[in-house]
Amino acid sequence: MTLQRCDTIESIRGAVRAARAAGRTIGIVPTMGNLHAGHASLIDASVGDGHFTVVTIFVNPTQFGPTEDLAAYPRTGEADLALCEAHGAAAAFMPAVEAMYPPGARTSIHVAALTEGLCGASRPGHFDGVCTVVAKLFNIVGPDAAYFGQKDAQQAIVLRRMAKDLDFPIALHVCPTVREADGLAMSSRNQYLTADQRRQATALHGALRLAAERIARGSTGAAALEAAMREHLAAHAPDGTVDYIALVNPEDLTCVQDVNGPVLIALAVKVGRARLIDNLMVDPRDRL
Amino acid sequence: MTLQRCDTIESIRGAVRAARAAGRTIGIVPTMGNLHAGHASLIDASVGDGHFTVVTIFVNPTQFGPTEDLAAYPRTGEADLALCEAHGAAAAFMPAVEAMYPPGARTSIHVAALTEGLCGASRPGHFDGVCTVVAKLFNIVGPDAAYFGQKDAQQAIVLRRMAKDLDFPIALHVCPTVREADGLAMSSRNQYLTADQRRQATALHGALRLAAERIARGSTGAAALEAAMREHLAAHAPDGTVDYIALVNPEDLTCVQDVNGPVLIALAVKVGRARLIDNLMVDPRDRL
Repeated sequence: MTLQRCDTIESIRGAVRAARAAGRTIGIVPTMGNLHAGHASLIDASVGDGHFTVVTIFVNPTQFGPTEDLAAYPRTGEADLALCEAHGAAAAFMPAVEAMYPPGARTSIHVAALTEGLCGASRPGHFDGVCTVVAKLFNIVGPDAAYFGQKDAQQAIVLRRMAKDLDFPIALHVCPTVREADGLAMSSRNQYLTADQRRQATALHGALRLAAERIARGSTGAAALEAAMREHLAAHAPDGTVDYIALVNPEDLTCVQDVNGPVLIALAVKVGRARLIDNLMVDPRDRL
Repeated sequence: MTLQRCDTIESIRGAVRAARAAGRTIGIVPTMGNLHAGHASLIDASVGDGHFTVVTIFVNPTQFGPTEDLAAYPRTGEADLALCEAHGAAAAFMPAVEAMYPPGARTSIHVAALTEGLCGASRPGHFDGVCTVVAKLFNIVGPDAAYFGQKDAQQAIVLRRMAKDLDFPIALHVCPTVREADGLAMSSRNQYLTADQRRQATALHGALRLAAERIARGSTGAAALEAAMREHLAAHAPDGTVDYIALVNPEDLTCVQDVNGPVLIALAVKVGRARLIDNLMVDPRDRL
C-alpha cells in the first residue's frame, strides 16, 4: 500500500474518514520527524496492532524555549516518508506551522506538578507546548491508540495524565527505548555530537546501568546512587554538563529517598550542542 | 422516545455509540442543570438540527471561586430530566464529581487574553474551569455540534477560541438570550433574588437597551455610554453593585473607545446574593 502524504488538516481528516469507512481502527505516532529506529519501533507497534497508522511529522515551535534548537532541529522530510512507507504507515501528516498555529491562537494545556521537575525545571513551558500540540493532533486525527517512546519518560507520563484527565478516548502505549549497539538511546539530537562527544555520550546509559546494578545488589540510598552516577559521568563524559540526575516515583515523579519499589532513574546531560536525556525503570524486587 | 439517563462516562459513551451506529449525528448541550427556558432553547436548536441530543447536567466545581455559590447552586435533577424529555433530548449525562475529577486529576486548559477582562477579572480561574470541563465533555460525548447561550457571551467567545485552537471537530452554535417578559435574562441565579431585588434586576436589560438606543441614534463615545448605563442602574437598581460595564470588540474582547463597528455591551451587577450578567450585541450601522 502506498503512503498517503497529507499536508493539510482537511486532507488527513479525509484520509482517516475513508479508513474508518473501510472499517479500520486508527493509530497515531506523533513525531518531530528526522525519524530513526526508535520512531520505526512505534510505527511497527501501531501497524502490528492492526491500525491504519498515521505518523505526524511536525517540529512544534511551542515546545522549544527561546534559546533552544528549534532552527537547528534536523528536517529530513523525504527520508522520513521513505521510513514511514517501509514500516507500513498508511499516512504521514506534515502540516505547516501556520496551519497548526494560525494568527490568534492562544489556548494551552497545563498538567500541574508532573511538569515541574526533571526536564520541566530547565525547559519552562516545554510540556505545555507538548500537551497542546498532542491534544490538537488527537483532535485532528481522532485515533483509537497513540504510541510514544519510553526514552521521553516524563513526556509519556505527562501525556498519559493529560489524556486521562481530559477523557480522550485513546489508548496510550509507551514503547521501549531503542538503543545503539553501545547503549546510547536513539535521538535526533545525537547527530549534533562530534565523534569524541559521541563516545562520551555512552556514559549516560553507563551511569543508568551502574545505578540499576547497584540497586539489584541491594543499594537503596538515592543520594549515594546519584553521587555514583555523577562520578561515572565525570570520568567517562568529561565534556558533559549534568542538568539533572534523579530517582523518582514513576507514578507521580516525586523524588525517591530510599529505593524500595519501582523507581525511574532519569538524567539529562548537555554534551556539546546536544542536550541528551535517558532513563531506566528499575524494580528492586528484581534482585540479581 | 424515552430520555436515557446516564450517570457514568461508560454509559453515555455506550448511548452515543449506539446512536452513531444507527446513523445519528450527535449534539451536546452542556449545562449546570436547574434548567430553564434558556436551556430549553438550546435543546430545541440541537433537536431541530436533527441531532441525537445529549444534555450534560454537571455543577462543575472547578469553575467556582472559593467564595462563590457552589454549595448553594440549585440542583433540581428530576425537574431537569422532565424538561430534557419534553424538549426531545435523547440522553442526559449526570456524572458524579468524583467521576469527572478522580484523585490525581491535574490538567487544565487556559485561553489567554480573552479570559482576563469582564467576568474573568472578578472570577480568576473561572474560564480555565469552564474550558477544561467542556473539553472533557467534548471528549466523553464526541459530538458533531455544541450549543451555548449568548447570555454567557464571554464564555461563548472563549469556548469558540478553545475549540478552534485545539481543533475539536465540533460546530459551535451560540443561541440568543432568552428573557422574561420584562427583559430580565433567564438565569438560575435569578431565584436568589427577593421580590424587590427581582424588580430592580430588570435595570440590567434596561441599561443595555438605553445604550443600544443611544448608539442607534448616533452616540459613539464608550465612556459616556458607560456613564449613562451606570446612572440608569443607580436609579433603577439602588441595591445593585456594579462589577463591570464594558463596551468591547466582540472578536477579541478588547475595550472599544469609539463605537464604529459591532460592539458587545456587557455588564455584571451583584444584586443581593446574585451576581447577574447580561449583554447585547449592537451594530451602529443598524441606525434607527
